[in-house]
Amino acid sequence: MLQPEQLDRIAIVLVRARNPNNIGAVARAMHDFGFRDLRLVNDYSVPLEAARSAIDASAVLAGAREFPTVAAAVSDCALVAGTTAVGERDLQHPLLALSDAAPRILEALGEPANIAEETPRAALLFGSEKTGLSNDELSHCNWLLTIPMHQHPDHRHPSMNLGQAVAVCLYELVRQRELPHTGRSTAPQPAPAGDLERLTALYQQVLEASEYTRHHPANSSAADLRRRLLRLQFDRIDTPVWMGILRQILWKLRAIGAADSPTSSNDRC
Amino acid sequence: MLQPEQLDRIAIVLVRARNPNNIGAVARAMHDFGFRDLRLVNDYSVPLEAARSAIDASAVLAGAREFPTVAAAVSDCALVAGTTAVGERDLQHPLLALSDAAPRILEALGEPANIAEETPRAALLFGSEKTGLSNDELSHCNWLLTIPMHQHPDHRHPSMNLGQAVAVCLYELVRQRELPHTGRSTAPQPAPAGDLERLTALYQQVLEASEYTRHHPANSSAADLRRRLLRLQFDRIDTPVWMGILRQILWKLRAIGAADSPTSSNDRC
Repeated sequence: MLQPEQLDRIAIVLVRARNPNNIGAVARAMHDFGFRDLRLVNDYSVPLEAARSAIDASAVLAGAREFPTVAAAVSDCALVAGTTAVGERDLQHPLLALSDAAPRILEALGEPANIAEETPRAALLFGSEKTGLSNDELSHCNWLLTIPMHQHPDHRHPSMNLGQAVAVCLYELVRQRELPHTGRSTAPQPAPAGDLERLTALYQQVLEASEYTRHHPANSSAADLRRRLLRLQFDRIDTPVWMGILRQILWKLRAIGAADSPTSSNDRC
Repeated sequence: MLQPEQLDRIAIVLVRARNPNNIGAVARAMHDFGFRDLRLVNDYSVPLEAARSAIDASAVLAGAREFPTVAAAVSDCALVAGTTAVGERDLQHPLLALSDAAPRILEALGEPANIAEETPRAALLFGSEKTGLSNDELSHCNWLLTIPMHQHPDHRHPSMNLGQAVAVCLYELVRQRELPHTGRSTAPQPAPAGDLERLTALYQQVLEASEYTRHHPANSSAADLRRRLLRLQFDRIDTPVWMGILRQILWKLRAIGAADSPTSSNDRC
């Protein structure tokens, strides 16, 4: 599982990002996934004030640093991975799908216990919204990664919104993170067979008391009843509630039956 | 690998999404990843015209359908998975991390060859930007999924931008998709040992011709030279270029040596 010390050693580098809304969206995604090192490469100063309106982005934006060149922005990074949309040009770099790239980036960071100030960092480079990374900017990268997208037949070349692309990349880096412990943050838990057997018995009594079994004998063998019930995949926590419901129905049916019995046993179906 | 027939059977349902920019961002993410079935649940008609300005979103938005209730929106879906930010409330549903949820959704779709018009669909529900899904809306879900986010100590409860959340969920569903075939869409390919041996030999000749080995004998054992060179992890495609570079340097060094030889063998280091 990824540690905060490791997240802090991954720099998100935006090269020639011009739209403050996109920069704000990137900062918010970084905040959501626990990343903090945002670097901007621009030949002029970006109006970050506008980006600060993005919800939850302020801490990341406050720490953002501006650099005049890609070389300056990645000078402390031992691994520089560039992002690209496939098909744009004849790539001169090795190209990895994001799911293959993420483990390599994490591996390059080393074990949390061994991380010191001089431990090399990793940089993830994102190009401008319109043109992506130029060949010169790509030459600073060790390799490239791409988010596999749908190939539309009529499409010039695929591209993603910058904020969404960063969110997807950061998600892939932390996707194995465990869920925080909450009262009940678990996968569905099937009910044990013993509970289901008691549930089936109650259900059968309900069908008999309601005279369903008498009217529909073809659907009412014990095996039919059990099979149909088990297909419902009762959850462990819900099963006692279902048993309470059936007990109540059974009680009511029998109460009606008892009230009816002096006069008649006529059908109600 | 996911087939287009399967993607078309996953409905993205936005419940009470009010910001047309967010709806546009969702539609663009769907287009990027190859999904087409967008459904909107609102008690009033959403101004979709504004959403249509999102790049590449138009085809998805043109096919979007509006429903008055969640029940109506998911009536043809056999699996309804709700999305939630953990920690908001006491959840009454099973909760899965996105990476565990995606295989269940894909499994529910069945094999592409068996898909017919009546094959049940799956729905992924997203709540409003501000409040998420209400308890009533959640009650239509078979189970919930969450995108694991960083737990900031000072944070009320984490939440993601709607467009980014949808992009991350759709990415997880298709992340095993293969890269399209391009000229060179491959992982780095290490150079074979034979090439590296020839490279090492050339490199050694260069160090001798430049008299580096004579001046630094402690660094110049054959094993040292080979080990240092192999650590560089030469790529198969780059290795011939490196050999050409070394041959050129060697040629130049020897040409200088030949010119020098009549007069002296003085050091140039």
